[in-house]
Amino acid sequence: MAVRVPKGYLVAGVHCGLKRDLRKPDLTLIVSETPATAVGVYTQNIVCAAPVQLDRKRTPSTRIRAVVINSGNANACTGERGLRDAEEMARLAAKAVGVEEDQVLVMSTGVIGVYLPMDKIAHGIELAAARLGNDEEALIMAARGMMTTDTVYKLSGRTLSLARREIQITGMVKGAAMMGPNLATMLGVLFTDATLDVDTAQRLLRETVDDTFNCINVDGHTSTNDTVLFLANGAAGGPPLTGDLLEDFQREFHSLCVELARMIPADGEGATHLITIEVTGCRTRQDALQIARAIANSPLVKAAIHGADPNWGRIVSAAGYAGVPFDPNKLTLYLNGFCLYRDGTPVKFDEIEVSNSIRAERETRIELVLQEGNASGRFWTTDLTPEYVRLNAEYRT
Amino acid sequence: MAVRVPKGYLVAGVHCGLKRDLRKPDLTLIVSETPATAVGVYTQNIVCAAPVQLDRKRTPSTRIRAVVINSGNANACTGERGLRDAEEMARLAAKAVGVEEDQVLVMSTGVIGVYLPMDKIAHGIELAAARLGNDEEALIMAARGMMTTDTVYKLSGRTLSLARREIQITGMVKGAAMMGPNLATMLGVLFTDATLDVDTAQRLLRETVDDTFNCINVDGHTSTNDTVLFLANGAAGGPPLTGDLLEDFQREFHSLCVELARMIPADGEGATHLITIEVTGCRTRQDALQIARAIANSPLVKAAIHGADPNWGRIVSAAGYAGVPFDPNKLTLYLNGFCLYRDGTPVKFDEIEVSNSIRAERETRIELVLQEGNASGRFWTTDLTPEYVRLNAEYRT
Repeated sequence: MAVRVPKGYLVAGVHCGLKRDLRKPDLTLIVSETPATAVGVYTQNIVCAAPVQLDRKRTPSTRIRAVVINSGNANACTGERGLRDAEEMARLAAKAVGVEEDQVLVMSTGVIGVYLPMDKIAHGIELAAARLGNDEEALIMAARGMMTTDTVYKLSGRTLSLARREIQITGMVKGAAMMGPNLATMLGVLFTDATLDVDTAQRLLRETVDDTFNCINVDGHTSTNDTVLFLANGAAGGPPLTGDLLEDFQREFHSLCVELARMIPADGEGATHLITIEVTGCRTRQDALQIARAIANSPLVKAAIHGADPNWGRIVSAAGYAGVPFDPNKLTLYLNGFCLYRDGTPVKFDEIEVSNSIRAERETRIELVLQEGNASGRFWTTDLTPEYVRLNAEYRT
Repeated sequence: MAVRVPKGYLVAGVHCGLKRDLRKPDLTLIVSETPATAVGVYTQNIVCAAPVQLDRKRTPSTRIRAVVINSGNANACTGERGLRDAEEMARLAAKAVGVEEDQVLVMSTGVIGVYLPMDKIAHGIELAAARLGNDEEALIMAARGMMTTDTVYKLSGRTLSLARREIQITGMVKGAAMMGPNLATMLGVLFTDATLDVDTAQRLLRETVDDTFNCINVDGHTSTNDTVLFLANGAAGGPPLTGDLLEDFQREFHSLCVELARMIPADGEGATHLITIEVTGCRTRQDALQIARAIANSPLVKAAIHGADPNWGRIVSAAGYAGVPFDPNKLTLYLNGFCLYRDGTPVKFDEIEVSNSIRAERETRIELVLQEGNASGRFWTTDLTPEYVRLNAEYRT
């Protein structure tokens, strides 16, 4: 995977004291050397954090120059003061890199309901501005600066050649639970040196997120801070992408987002399995995703996978309460390729063999086949483990 | 609490080999000496078990004479053969107690996707018919015959005097997870010697269930078998209840259902806390319940309560994604009477004191106050513990 900083960007990740551990960066700065097209998609939670409110106002835009991100504090549920803090954070970053205040976007993730320590933030922004770079080390530090309970940084990229121009798309995300132990959120930044007009960028992000970052969960708890930003600064040169070139770009962009999205449940708190749920034969893609999501949200399904238990009754019954009408007598289920249930009737299978297949692999594949139509949908989730509960129960006590 | 068999009913609970432990009854028979008004409410899961399909056809009715219930096997996801088995189970019970086949209702709970061992069922029905009684011991055995992973039987009653007639309402329920370790379901039977016409009985049950058994959960997983039946045989004498008498009856009926409903999450698998979630100040009761349910379904809220962690951010953010529009700047939260969040802003509070209050009591009270209207709703759930996950992961492995 081509993981490098796209042309015309500088990045940094530094430690400024929001996290206790000195070795962990907690502030990230991404700067575009020229004004970039920037679009975002945001949490649907009506209790949304101050940085989300700020970014919503400033995007879509054709002149963004920087994104400043802190981890360790979500600046959520902090009222008017939280909003002022988010604005001040943007102002400080703008000053540090010499751009206008409204050319800066802000992201925060971490503890809810605590005011940002603005002295630390100010110090961190100064530090980061002094350390901006475009090498791999700077990029990894930037990705690490977003992490909360993540156990690994989540970074990837694609290099493609379009009309003889080399284009780079790079993405970094964080997230290990929709909300971790009092820490929140999925955050993502995708940035490219391609040229894209703002409407195209917004459409691309919206469509791709629907298919990728909106199709994952760990615990079904929608955060107050979820944000994915997409920047395109055109440093690779050329006019805005259209037609075949745009399609090629979109394909790589989608593939990158799938890769990054899967990293989140794969690093789910306490998880031992990444579960892929594929639902086919539905009337609409929305129906398929609704069924997949109901299965992904069932603690009983998730606990069964943790126990390597091919407990198909839980999967079939979760499909049944998803709120999508279908003929249960035409329902078929595969688990890791083994057929467990066909046309509404149990199938004899070797439980030990299927159980061993779950235990042997970190990834489990659930395929539910309906006979209502031709639409399908895919969702990724984790198993549910005693460790997840411990992590989330014992955080402060 | 007046726990006795209402006039004109006989009950029994026996062991017939569906459960391994010989001391555990697994088949229950309830017989009315005269035709009873009978109504039911059933699971909304479209993957629904054979006995649910059978009872749906036979209710509402004015001539039901018996209910036969087995635990240890849900007769769910068993296709055509499952339907024939449920019908045969009713036929055997009808023969054993000398009534018509279509005067019998059936309930099943237990493992999904395994055919009923009809020889054992037949034997159990014979045994139960021979042991019918109306004393407390018979009633307790009947309540125990419904249990799966329940650790206690769940039985209560009310005695009231209406127009100088003594009326008895008795209820028994089972349920410890919406689906336990491969075992399913909430089942309930409410039976009374009052006289009720069938439309009144149906309305009473529908309204009361909406407020009680539909306002509890353990894991949010809707079972294939959920059923609550309500029988009224009129053995106490008098014309069908109307007006003030009906209101008095309804009040006691409601109070009994609240008591029985709370017993289910209180006995939730692995649970250490019963959580009551009260949401007030909503535009509609539906809005209030939707918010309460989102909080009750959040594994993060449930894990926090297990850890005695007054993690109000999780509660507030769960309310925010419930899908109900409200002004987050007018949101106030109390936990065990302590105000943690007022008008969208964090409140300073003594974390140790609040944490100790959670640890000290088996019951935790969450109150969320909105300022959108005057409607309210109440929901009961459990905390989420490593023990729940272990129970549901390690069942068969």
